[in-house]
Amino acid sequence: MVADTDLAPRGVIPPLVSPLDEHGDVDRRSLERLVEFQLAAGVDGVFVCGSTGEVALLDTVQRKEIIEVTAGAVAGAVPVLAGAVDTGTRRVAEHVAQASAAGADAVVVTAPFYVRPHPGETVAHFRYVQAASDVPVIAYDIPSAVGTALTPDIVTELAESKTVVALKDSSGDLTSFREILRRTGLPALTGSELLADTAMGLGAAGLVPGLGNVDPHGYVRLYRAALAGDVETARSEQDRLAKLFTIIGVADLGRIGFTAGALGAFKAAMALRGIIDTPLSNRPLGALTAEETLAVGEILESVGLGAVGVPGD
Amino acid sequence: MVADTDLAPRGVIPPLVSPLDEHGDVDRRSLERLVEFQLAAGVDGVFVCGSTGEVALLDTVQRKEIIEVTAGAVAGAVPVLAGAVDTGTRRVAEHVAQASAAGADAVVVTAPFYVRPHPGETVAHFRYVQAASDVPVIAYDIPSAVGTALTPDIVTELAESKTVVALKDSSGDLTSFREILRRTGLPALTGSELLADTAMGLGAAGLVPGLGNVDPHGYVRLYRAALAGDVETARSEQDRLAKLFTIIGVADLGRIGFTAGALGAFKAAMALRGIIDTPLSNRPLGALTAEETLAVGEILESVGLGAVGVPGD
Amino acid sequence: MVADTDLAPRGVIPPLVSPLDEHGDVDRRSLERLVEFQLAAGVDGVFVCGSTGEVALLDTVQRKEIIEVTAGAVAGAVPVLAGAVDTGTRRVAEHVAQASAAGADAVVVTAPFYVRPHPGETVAHFRYVQAASDVPVIAYDIPSAVGTALTPDIVTELAESKTVVALKDSSGDLTSFREILRRTGLPALTGSELLADTAMGLGAAGLVPGLGNVDPHGYVRLYRAALAGDVETARSEQDRLAKLFTIIGVADLGRIGFTAGALGAFKAAMALRGIIDTPLSNRPLGALTAEETLAVGEILESVGLGAVGVPGD
Amino acid sequence: MVADTDLAPRGVIPPLVSPLDEHGDVDRRSLERLVEFQLAAGVDGVFVCGSTGEVALLDTVQRKEIIEVTAGAVAGAVPVLAGAVDTGTRRVAEHVAQASAAGADAVVVTAPFYVRPHPGETVAHFRYVQAASDVPVIAYDIPSAVGTALTPDIVTELAESKTVVALKDSSGDLTSFREILRRTGLPALTGSELLADTAMGLGAAGLVPGLGNVDPHGYVRLYRAALAGDVETARSEQDRLAKLFTIIGVADLGRIGFTAGALGAFKAAMALRGIIDTPLSNRPLGALTAEETLAVGEILESVGLGAVGVPGD
Repeated sequence: MVADTDLAPRGVIPPLVSPLDEHGDVDRRSLERLVEFQLAAGVDGVFVCGSTGEVALLDTVQRKEIIEVTAGAVAGAVPVLAGAVDTGTRRVAEHVAQASAAGADAVVVTAPFYVRPHPGETVAHFRYVQAASDVPVIAYDIPSAVGTALTPDIVTELAESKTVVALKDSSGDLTSFREILRRTGLPALTGSELLADTAMGLGAAGLVPGLGNVDPHGYVRLYRAALAGDVETARSEQDRLAKLFTIIGVADLGRIGFTAGALGAFKAAMALRGIIDTPLSNRPLGALTAEETLAVGEILESVGLGAVGVPGD
Repeated sequence: MVADTDLAPRGVIPPLVSPLDEHGDVDRRSLERLVEFQLAAGVDGVFVCGSTGEVALLDTVQRKEIIEVTAGAVAGAVPVLAGAVDTGTRRVAEHVAQASAAGADAVVVTAPFYVRPHPGETVAHFRYVQAASDVPVIAYDIPSAVGTALTPDIVTELAESKTVVALKDSSGDLTSFREILRRTGLPALTGSELLADTAMGLGAAGLVPGLGNVDPHGYVRLYRAALAGDVETARSEQDRLAKLFTIIGVADLGRIGFTAGALGAFKAAMALRGIIDTPLSNRPLGALTAEETLAVGEILESVGLGAVGVPGD
Repeated sequence: MVADTDLAPRGVIPPLVSPLDEHGDVDRRSLERLVEFQLAAGVDGVFVCGSTGEVALLDTVQRKEIIEVTAGAVAGAVPVLAGAVDTGTRRVAEHVAQASAAGADAVVVTAPFYVRPHPGETVAHFRYVQAASDVPVIAYDIPSAVGTALTPDIVTELAESKTVVALKDSSGDLTSFREILRRTGLPALTGSELLADTAMGLGAAGLVPGLGNVDPHGYVRLYRAALAGDVETARSEQDRLAKLFTIIGVADLGRIGFTAGALGAFKAAMALRGIIDTPLSNRPLGALTAEETLAVGEILESVGLGAVGVPGD
Repeated sequence: MVADTDLAPRGVIPPLVSPLDEHGDVDRRSLERLVEFQLAAGVDGVFVCGSTGEVALLDTVQRKEIIEVTAGAVAGAVPVLAGAVDTGTRRVAEHVAQASAAGADAVVVTAPFYVRPHPGETVAHFRYVQAASDVPVIAYDIPSAVGTALTPDIVTELAESKTVVALKDSSGDLTSFREILRRTGLPALTGSELLADTAMGLGAAGLVPGLGNVDPHGYVRLYRAALAGDVETARSEQDRLAKLFTIIGVADLGRIGFTAGALGAFKAAMALRGIIDTPLSNRPLGALTAEETLAVGEILESVGLGAVGVPGD
């Protein structure tokens, strides 16, 4: 138990999508509505500029605006995490400085990519980033995007040196997740939509599910049930959310990519529910067709999700 | 034969390393010396902020400085290509604007990464980038870094729509390279250090070898021999360069990563030859040990490369 | 709930190693001792000629002998499962016929490999194999070895058509495992050493842990606790087994391969405990050094495992 | 130059498909006709039970029959190579013994697969196999099927120890191919359909193109032109064969797998030309549709290939 966990976020912290208007600009009004919707659902934090937030596709102006608008709308109610995702140390440091200035309470950082780092270089990367950061750093393990994993050895070194205050795990590898929990005591958040209750059972400190954009209430119920030791309620909620998660399979991957299909389904569901205005993703990602959007709507209906009445609407 | 090839670079265009000083800042004097060394060797262009130039590790200030210093030192003698390498369309557009303003004559752009694009989205990415660019766009195929390949179908679409003026191929896949040449007539530059003569035989328009930082004279001789149809001289030069290329194998990959080992070997060789002052790479990459540097020196000697007399030194 | 589960094995079913003598021949006496040791520990079945049983390295004579000796030693006390692992349908059918004749009660079959099958071809593979088999077929999902996964769609089709009676999951992917359980009701055994209790919580029908060769008592305790709903005891046992499992990390992978390192550690531990005579693996796998074997011994000691008194010894 | 090359095959050695009848049995008459067709085209050897020969899908009886029928039909005119492709050393030894007894003049052996070998274990594998073989061993590098490559270091060790007499390279990696030629002098055959002339230019000893089943005359012309230094004729023939090779792209990979699509196209073309009776592949591979077969026919016509008059027909 080496980590200073006072700074570490816990609970349900959805990785917010980045609402855009028809010109591709940040849709501030939708973003504010999304934040209000999340807070009303009882989330414990929000995470902007993550993979679900299209961080890889946002330019500097968009990132600044998203963090500022979010920090403003959250108004200190919960922590605001911001992804600082880029290929190398100095690039990431630029994101960190921007995020910190724009109001982020913590930054979420991956291993270097495009280059092929040695584990020791990955550790050095986090140390340099942390040394230059005004806010706590959370390690982001997402090998499907960056090509290398944050192994238990790497995370242990980051935890023992107090370089990071938490882990955001999107590896899909519960074996590694569990070993990290055993070895470090570092607060670890799972990005899994479908094993949220399982991860809680293993000791996860919280949940960062992309699907939480569409149904934060479900994940809040799941989290609270799991915390209270009510395994059956958590499982039942997880089963309902698994049904909802099938929206990411409606897109024809012969036409658009996997990322576009998944993000497009989240945004389509959110637009159908009235949480955001427009379901478009950033260039160059394609969007769902009208027919695919209908299929998303049917799934929403099947799990009892309709239009939301958002405060202020 | 659909491409407008007037804008396309040809010949030997080494992807320059980014010389740094001991503080990690751009070493302007070494960079100028490197450019002079390259021009004196007879290169037909230079390519900065590519993978060999540590583009993934350079921050905004470094990139600007590198392009400006290079453009100043080149002074119009040959084209200056600059990598605009980032994960998504809007991010790349920022790099392109910066590179163009800093004096680049063309930009070199990869497929999107971190996200998982559909081939149609990759094509759309290049179209958006080109539409926003003041300078010609060159497609950069480097699946080892970005995870997807620029297939012959993608490149054909980019060529026929005149979205790109050339291809920089670092795929290592000569089958695809040849099919692209057959189908498009697009000028295609190979990034291969070891199959440069072979690629010329297949119709490559030029060479972009990282090893050209260390021995541009060798690649210029190879290129000119191949152009003149002197297969034996080209092959003999290629064999010598293959021997030199073994420098990338001296680093202990138990200690530093593949990228650090290869770039570190190039920079160590350049420092030994007096082309740059310091062999350090950007954070977080490790460097060669003294012993490994000695091994590089022995290989340099074995192929007849010593200290250079650079104009102005 | 489509599967006919009467035929399906349940409980703890260790994938037995294949004990060899110094000439590389099957060590019948050690194999009999291993079976007796397993039965005495309370296992619910044994699985021979699996990946842990070096199936990929066993010739026809060895496979026949191993199944016969095992079936003889088990003497009907529990089911004997046998791997029928080969690249294509007709090859697998030969293994199945041999296994069935030698006394196996069920066969365990992977997707085709070496070739690159379409999911529909993988389904067809299992149908042909099942149609030619005298004994029930269990699907074996091991993408790390065969390159493709048995997706939920594939397994659902196999379950609904009653082609297979169970799934042996060595994918490491609990998301898929859980989806299969939700969709099919097919009895599913996990091959995970480290998430055995978690898999039980998700509804696994049993455990097939390679580490069960070394400590079947631990997995039997874990399984029974999990069945009884005693989550804490199961977790505590799992934690102890996780510590034991670190034996697979002692081998220097600069000298021998991953497979040799893992199997060699199991066999070294078993030899130290007196369960088998000789820790050698089949050609061409290397073995642990004396020093590495000492390290295995220290780990055994740290979790309280000593020499066993086997009935008959 | 360490290899004893007297035993090594050279020239055009097509990897023959395995003709089957409608019951899935070996179609001896078609196989004999195929051999006669190949010999009449001037090939320098034939290779049965390779990847193109569906070795992964053939059972013991089929393999024996194919080798015997082929050896009988060849009648000593050229060498008969046979694949001995299996996961581990003892399994491969069984194939080798069978192939040798059935009349093969040499066996073609891959690295171990399914297991994850260390390079040293791969070398040991070949040594054990060679020690047990009556006929020379050829190393078969096919990482797309077996997951590991025969690196230049591995091949150099195999060559220097005279463990293998040749290399059959299906890696698609000309950089490695060239380095092996430089370092070993081992006769190296390329499996590339599309870079046959290029490989000859680099020093290949011969060609093993699957497409040679359909058009052996084309590869014989290409080989002889390349040997004679007539680069232009070789290239022109290569371009024509590249056009023919597009047959492997006609199958809908939403319906059948990559292997089925490629092999099915070869067999469909051969059936259309009258070389074999039936285009079926072994279980579980799917076949081309009537429409896809028509598309193959159009491509055949476009490169001037019609029905063949085979001796004896």
